[in-house]
Amino acid sequence: MVNTELLYILKRETGYISGEEISGQLGITRAAIWKHIQELRNLGYDIAAVPHLGYKLLSLPDRLYPWEIKYHLKNKFIGKAVYYYENLSSTMDTAMDLALNGVSEGALIIAEGQTEGRGRMGRLWLSPKYKGIYFSLIIKPKILPQQTPVLTLISAVAICQALKRHLGIEAQIKWPNDILVDDRKVGGILTEMNAEMDAVHAIIVGVGINVNNDKGALPYPAGTLKEAVGYEINRLILLKYILSYFEDKYLQFQRQGVDRILEEWRHFSATLGKRIKLSVVGKRQALIGKAMDIDYDGGLLVRLDSGLTERVVAGDISHCKQ
Amino acid sequence: MVNTELLYILKRETGYISGEEISGQLGITRAAIWKHIQELRNLGYDIAAVPHLGYKLLSLPDRLYPWEIKYHLKNKFIGKAVYYYENLSSTMDTAMDLALNGVSEGALIIAEGQTEGRGRMGRLWLSPKYKGIYFSLIIKPKILPQQTPVLTLISAVAICQALKRHLGIEAQIKWPNDILVDDRKVGGILTEMNAEMDAVHAIIVGVGINVNNDKGALPYPAGTLKEAVGYEINRLILLKYILSYFEDKYLQFQRQGVDRILEEWRHFSATLGKRIKLSVVGKRQALIGKAMDIDYDGGLLVRLDSGLTERVVAGDISHCKQ
Repeated sequence: MVNTELLYILKRETGYISGEEISGQLGITRAAIWKHIQELRNLGYDIAAVPHLGYKLLSLPDRLYPWEIKYHLKNKFIGKAVYYYENLSSTMDTAMDLALNGVSEGALIIAEGQTEGRGRMGRLWLSPKYKGIYFSLIIKPKILPQQTPVLTLISAVAICQALKRHLGIEAQIKWPNDILVDDRKVGGILTEMNAEMDAVHAIIVGVGINVNNDKGALPYPAGTLKEAVGYEINRLILLKYILSYFEDKYLQFQRQGVDRILEEWRHFSATLGKRIKLSVVGKRQALIGKAMDIDYDGGLLVRLDSGLTERVVAGDISHCKQ
Repeated sequence: MVNTELLYILKRETGYISGEEISGQLGITRAAIWKHIQELRNLGYDIAAVPHLGYKLLSLPDRLYPWEIKYHLKNKFIGKAVYYYENLSSTMDTAMDLALNGVSEGALIIAEGQTEGRGRMGRLWLSPKYKGIYFSLIIKPKILPQQTPVLTLISAVAICQALKRHLGIEAQIKWPNDILVDDRKVGGILTEMNAEMDAVHAIIVGVGINVNNDKGALPYPAGTLKEAVGYEINRLILLKYILSYFEDKYLQFQRQGVDRILEEWRHFSATLGKRIKLSVVGKRQALIGKAMDIDYDGGLLVRLDSGLTERVVAGDISHCKQ
């Protein structure tokens, strides 16, 4: 067990702090402190120990540890409980399992790598260890099943705002669930629900983002954030921004409905106003038309060449070359 | 482990069958047969054993044993796998758990009693042991989440047809999920799904029917089938009819779409044409209007007094006195 109190003392301290002082603050022996320092070092923390000076935290490991996620995170419920794994087959399955077994709204299920990361419709999401951000959130809103896509909208907006804030990147949303940077897909959202007709029991919002992935290891036309900005990115800070924006948007949705979310979504949309080709689930023939707007349940309104407007709730689109 | 081969031999035989003959057919010793006979007796089978004559099955226990459900059931997949329990908290939870862990379409999860049987929106469904029929079916159709209510329609029609065939009862369907006999609720359907926006992963259709329940133990205005016909009902036969009709309807839906199901649903509907009061989920004010029709996704079309027609997908209705 990591001693997070000790770690937080080291994180707050800019210089060296003596074993004696730590001992006084935590009420544990200096031998115990030394043991905990070793544990932290084993987790990848670089900690200097200098006689007569004490300890100093030099650097953090590139890990999304729960105590790091929670450190200074102002959220009320999103990410307050963290289930952290080195490896999972998929954070989605673990999250749904936890949600149906009573784990509360806001719990974050995060894995450093996934062996069977999923995209929509059973597609694979490559999830190499320590390279990307792969997580699922447990949400239990009082909504009807058909409103579930709103959670996808909220997530997409939160991710775009976090990318803007942390990296200055202007990301875009390709309906329904892709995050694009420079027209390359760098992230995806997968929203799954467990519901009866009158009530959603649980929604699992899954996010996968290619952060520091090696470009060569990704299928075309995927991109990575590292490629977009030109340097290794701090995954932890990005994750915390996403969680923070997610909670903001979600609370806003609960208090004021979906209008403001839709406005922000439109702002980040790469799809609206474009001519698109639609492969609709359950229909053999693709449709071509212009993406006009998004509606309050996350459906895409498309004006077909016939002049009719079709509302689409599921399917794949490709943006036609202009 | 019950020896179903031995049981089926006894079931097929109208008179006595000698231990020697059974021994020849099954290739086991007469001592082993005796042991299996004792096991069957322990399960409630009344089996006569007469020297020089042999064995004769006199009566079956009032139990929904898997081997009894499967006996002569012509279904291709509904009820081919049976998970049988004396007691469950709820067949819904066990079924969803099995479905998400790879159990195939058509599996039947059945319990003689439920300690926390559920109706819609977390309501309790009283499930006293051996009195009613409580089961869930695992369905994995290639449909979108919004089509899920069709499974409720299919179940309701299957139950009404089974009641007509087995008991001559003219049951009715109160939208969205009640089965009425003589205006009393004798059964309910609960449909839950696990889905992403583009695809349903699994649907669990749950059915609870008050069969031989003691009337006094039920909350008003519930009714029981026993009360309606005046005698103890064979639960096993009724269950098998329901499973058989369910498969018929479901295959019909897959081959030809929902039209025929809707026709049959309209025939059994207690709601259509009636003046109803609607409590819509998420709306504080109840609506009053006339129930006009059901649509292809199971939504109820209601003509309000304002003249507007509203499509309702979730909520409670009460039929107004005419």
